[in-house]
Amino acid sequence: MDLVERIRSGNKRTLSKLITEVEYDTETGREALRELYKYTGNAHVVGITGSPGVGKSTLVARIVKELRKREISVGVVAVDPSSPFTGGAILGDRIRMQELACDPEVFIRSVSSSAGTVGRTTKNIIRVLDAAGKDVIVIETIGAGQVDLDVLNVADTKVIVLMPESGDEIQMIKAGLLEIGDVYVINKADLENAARTKSQLSLAIKERDGWIPEIVMTIATSGEGVEKLVDAIFAHKKHLEDSSNLRKGRLEAVKSEVVEILVEKLKMRFYEKFSNARYSDIFEQVLDKELDPFTAAELIEKEEGL
Amino acid sequence: MDLVERIRSGNKRTLSKLITEVEYDTETGREALRELYKYTGNAHVVGITGSPGVGKSTLVARIVKELRKREISVGVVAVDPSSPFTGGAILGDRIRMQELACDPEVFIRSVSSSAGTVGRTTKNIIRVLDAAGKDVIVIETIGAGQVDLDVLNVADTKVIVLMPESGDEIQMIKAGLLEIGDVYVINKADLENAARTKSQLSLAIKERDGWIPEIVMTIATSGEGVEKLVDAIFAHKKHLEDSSNLRKGRLEAVKSEVVEILVEKLKMRFYEKFSNARYSDIFEQVLDKELDPFTAAELIEKEEGL
Repeated sequence: MDLVERIRSGNKRTLSKLITEVEYDTETGREALRELYKYTGNAHVVGITGSPGVGKSTLVARIVKELRKREISVGVVAVDPSSPFTGGAILGDRIRMQELACDPEVFIRSVSSSAGTVGRTTKNIIRVLDAAGKDVIVIETIGAGQVDLDVLNVADTKVIVLMPESGDEIQMIKAGLLEIGDVYVINKADLENAARTKSQLSLAIKERDGWIPEIVMTIATSGEGVEKLVDAIFAHKKHLEDSSNLRKGRLEAVKSEVVEILVEKLKMRFYEKFSNARYSDIFEQVLDKELDPFTAAELIEKEEGL
Repeated sequence: MDLVERIRSGNKRTLSKLITEVEYDTETGREALRELYKYTGNAHVVGITGSPGVGKSTLVARIVKELRKREISVGVVAVDPSSPFTGGAILGDRIRMQELACDPEVFIRSVSSSAGTVGRTTKNIIRVLDAAGKDVIVIETIGAGQVDLDVLNVADTKVIVLMPESGDEIQMIKAGLLEIGDVYVINKADLENAARTKSQLSLAIKERDGWIPEIVMTIATSGEGVEKLVDAIFAHKKHLEDSSNLRKGRLEAVKSEVVEILVEKLKMRFYEKFSNARYSDIFEQVLDKELDPFTAAELIEKEEGL
């Protein structure tokens, strides 16, 4: 049985190994991605983002349970851009996730973001899980800047998790998160001021492409509200399918990806070129402040006929 | 008086305005950067990174105070990749920083990382402060993945802050932070197990280019150990100057920057090209799974003669 068949059959060990190949961007990984590509596009990708402490991991575990109750197969990709420094606190959740992972229809994988190309890596891992037949793929990502937005953009449905009165609202406005969320979750809804946070949020959220982002109140520790959350996710999925926005969004995603692939190749080529002596004069001049880097780039651009 | 002169004279209002231009990558900002470039390269850039809660901002405020005691002018650039979700908790520190900011020789600026090009933006803001005559520029960044590594790489001296027994050690090994720190700070050194954390860390740290990373114990809230920390930073500065690694490091930084400038330009050009109909067939084929994105990139590459 060849690799593609084994992946398609859902063999966990093969999946795990292939994802590692994809993570390290090996030749095997690339080849498999090319072959698997035609089997992708069936999974619904759900991005879940929120700052540390809002109960994101617990919520993800609950979502997975709820999906399994509905006999939906699940892949989870945990992207943790804060990996240099987090750790201890989420151990409990990791263990809870490991229990879920014993289910043959659930596959959980964490991705380190230190690789620099986390958006692309995540996208490719999602593809492997998609080709392996997972119905829903949940990406968990901390809400931290550009890396997360890159990851989040891979998702069909974007879920933004916050908690009552955490000061998140203002920060979200600044970061433009109020413009990208499809579903907003106020977790720890048993805390004071949950209702106030909800009303503030509903005032700030606007209809987008015919979809009014839903706000769901949850208590992830007890599971309260999770059923509603999963319903909201599927409502958004249906909206996308009905409105043809799914295809539009995915076409844009295809363009971005091809640009990224091209740019990454050119970058490698530049670094190779710059390691030989050809342009070392220019770089020395920049270092000695005789030339600024912008003019240097223009000179090289001309020289290379770009 | 022209812009360059006003910046060189240290006019805070001009500085503030120019940094905004640089942040938004305007034509004025770009032009100023070209002109100011020859006045740069004198400041020592110190990157301070650590996870939320280790007391980073308090420590930065203390470092600034200590530098001012030594009559050293300071620029602070706070890069906050977690801006979508942080907020409330650091308000106290922000206020403390604002007090420092009243000193004419101190300039403090925070940068949002949602711009996506935070590494380059930070580098350019540092340049403005450098040209304005700041002796030391401190960059404060949360330890969260690639964005931070990009920012941190701009620094001459990299300071990694952790706290006792936070489980940071293992995460740091994973993230490769043990290989890049020049100075390690164990803050909240009055907590239990500080000594144990120190000995574990010292076992893990290795000499690099003739420099053995220093470990400094601090209590930022009281200021204890901050003098030693600033001494360690200057010891590393002296080491760089003596060992010519500073020039070597900066030459590599110049190359990377020129590559980034080139790549960014090409990326814009690709997006422009892809917005017209020329390649829409290819993208549609990718979307319909008749072609994978890697092959699509190869086709376009050939077509464009890249």
